[in-house]
Amino acid sequence: MTTEGALLLADEVDGVLTLTLNRPDQFNALSEELLGELQSRLDAAARDDALRCVVLAAAGRAFCAGHDLKQMRANPDERYYRQLFAQCGRVMQSIVNLPVPVIAKVQGTATAAGCQLVASCDLAVASESAKFAVSGINVGLFCSTPAVALTRNVPAKKAFEMLITGQFISAAEAVDNGLVNHAVAPDQLDAALDALVQTICSKSPLAVRTGKAMYHRQRGMNLSDAYDYAGQVMAQNMMAEDVCEGIDAFMQKRHPVWKGR
Amino acid sequence: MTTEGALLLADEVDGVLTLTLNRPDQFNALSEELLGELQSRLDAAARDDALRCVVLAAAGRAFCAGHDLKQMRANPDERYYRQLFAQCGRVMQSIVNLPVPVIAKVQGTATAAGCQLVASCDLAVASESAKFAVSGINVGLFCSTPAVALTRNVPAKKAFEMLITGQFISAAEAVDNGLVNHAVAPDQLDAALDALVQTICSKSPLAVRTGKAMYHRQRGMNLSDAYDYAGQVMAQNMMAEDVCEGIDAFMQKRHPVWKGR
Amino acid sequence: MTTEGALLLADEVDGVLTLTLNRPDQFNALSEELLGELQSRLDAAARDDALRCVVLAAAGRAFCAGHDLKQMRANPDERYYRQLFAQCGRVMQSIVNLPVPVIAKVQGTATAAGCQLVASCDLAVASESAKFAVSGINVGLFCSTPAVALTRNVPAKKAFEMLITGQFISAAEAVDNGLVNHAVAPDQLDAALDALVQTICSKSPLAVRTGKAMYHRQRGMNLSDAYDYAGQVMAQNMMAEDVCEGIDAFMQKRHPVWKGR
Repeated sequence: MTTEGALLLADEVDGVLTLTLNRPDQFNALSEELLGELQSRLDAAARDDALRCVVLAAAGRAFCAGHDLKQMRANPDERYYRQLFAQCGRVMQSIVNLPVPVIAKVQGTATAAGCQLVASCDLAVASESAKFAVSGINVGLFCSTPAVALTRNVPAKKAFEMLITGQFISAAEAVDNGLVNHAVAPDQLDAALDALVQTICSKSPLAVRTGKAMYHRQRGMNLSDAYDYAGQVMAQNMMAEDVCEGIDAFMQKRHPVWKGR
Repeated sequence: MTTEGALLLADEVDGVLTLTLNRPDQFNALSEELLGELQSRLDAAARDDALRCVVLAAAGRAFCAGHDLKQMRANPDERYYRQLFAQCGRVMQSIVNLPVPVIAKVQGTATAAGCQLVASCDLAVASESAKFAVSGINVGLFCSTPAVALTRNVPAKKAFEMLITGQFISAAEAVDNGLVNHAVAPDQLDAALDALVQTICSKSPLAVRTGKAMYHRQRGMNLSDAYDYAGQVMAQNMMAEDVCEGIDAFMQKRHPVWKGR
Repeated sequence: MTTEGALLLADEVDGVLTLTLNRPDQFNALSEELLGELQSRLDAAARDDALRCVVLAAAGRAFCAGHDLKQMRANPDERYYRQLFAQCGRVMQSIVNLPVPVIAKVQGTATAAGCQLVASCDLAVASESAKFAVSGINVGLFCSTPAVALTRNVPAKKAFEMLITGQFISAAEAVDNGLVNHAVAPDQLDAALDALVQTICSKSPLAVRTGKAMYHRQRGMNLSDAYDYAGQVMAQNMMAEDVCEGIDAFMQKRHPVWKGR
């Protein structure tokens, strides 16, 4: 399934889809074309009932430098920019709305919309050598759309500091601030990512899909509505064959065998 | 007031009500009956004007293993599950809505709805040997209702990681992630809990009750509405005799003598 | 522009307005008169198109002890208190709504509404010797209006602990809990503040103003609305001359020369 030379590599093995940003010489800048590829792949992934999780990775030294400044500068038209940011916002929301978890594998620098990609993923593991910034302010362009994702992960004053100074934080700081789940030595990144992927793949597919959707949906609700909704989701989840199997296996101290979807 | 042999022990001393989950051999699993006992005790506590705070503790080695899986498995009926999760959600919301602070005293493992209990309390102190997980995913049942409480305490990516992997975090990680206020050596847990209880009991009862209610209510408001509401609450609070006494005592460098209710 | 002997010193140099609370013998308590001065200065600052950022500092050993208890005690009238807290709430919201960033420079103890001031600023740098508390509970007056600002910065259980115990946290804890961006040695406070101010002043004024406004406005929106709004703001921002200059300078590896407003 890999398409060499493409802007975005896609490789699906045993229900794990790895999407690799593949413009290493442009620090994987999110050109219109690359955003288009991402949207297509995410749309297809949303329809793939056998999918278990998605890894968002990057080729080369940088994870992602954000929007393609050269392309933006060549199209000095507000309507063009509105469409571009709307396209980018759709990609980010497609990650959140995807039925399976999306994990960012951050091997290098993530800036601006690249940092937004990390923030938009459900989980993120990073190399200790990775750095993170929302640096649009340095070229006179406040990272407004990245701010949306960032502020839903990182405490208020820290997020504002990153946005208004454009300065980098380290991978360790990214862990402290909630932008990333784990930072590991560069040569441990593959192993850390695989461990997380395998953990997710060992769970009931139905429970994982049920959980991701309910997790995001309940966040904006008040406490009472959230409990009403969560209770209904959980009661339906209880009726699944997988739960009978899961509880029986637990009581019999054996590994469960999931039904699948 | 202690009822030996009961599912839930209740002991009130000097306005401090200690509720102790007492199914140690079942890791204090929240059966219907135990949830019912908790609801009754919380309802009575809500009407007890002399109450200063509630401690939620547990007997045995585990704090609480969540729902009673055996009982759930024996009732394979969606309506039953809806009622069970609604009952559990009421208990959790009764903790939040109780007029006085509720402190979790976590001496051991807290999983699934047991972890939700900790998250639902206003404050939590834990033994360093305690562990925390929302582990329903391991039996095919995503911890949907625990997610409601967890995501209102713990940063987004960390909460999702706990929910989707079902893995344990240590007491130290629970402090870092906002799930618990303090983790102390096992033999210091009683002292740490007592210190917190005594601190709360040394305050004006009126101010504590006023504060807990306004704290939770303002959280969902926008900034302007929250300030309008908070200003009104604080102006009314200022008219209390306790505040005259408190300010006078402060200026005279002596201990205040609170009026009470 | 400095007015010696005033309750509030105001000093504007190169677009940086420093407001210094100047009641050192009263620990900079926020009397009606001082709140009035703050409101006037903030209102003027909001109309000052040349302003780049505001520093909120304090004279003497304490940063700010909160409301003026003596004055409050002398006016035992609920209508008076309503007006006072409304006045204070307006000041706090004027900081949030100011078109340019406001940085708290915390050289000493910040309590009650003084801690609220720190929480209300966009950024805060503190001396390692500074301490923070919302201590109204100690005089029978729950810090209701400070809770509004605090809970929008600090995790739920930690915020509640501070409010219900009234106990101090150290500057290091304030950093860990998101109340403050950085804590530095007392003799490094000026340098740390200056570095942050100069970083902000090196950015496009338009981008900074655009960013602060959008940052606060999007926080209460759901994800989809926030992205629609952020995309529009960013597309407009892209049309500014500063962005052309910023991107050109970035590509030519030179410093940008901003147009100004």
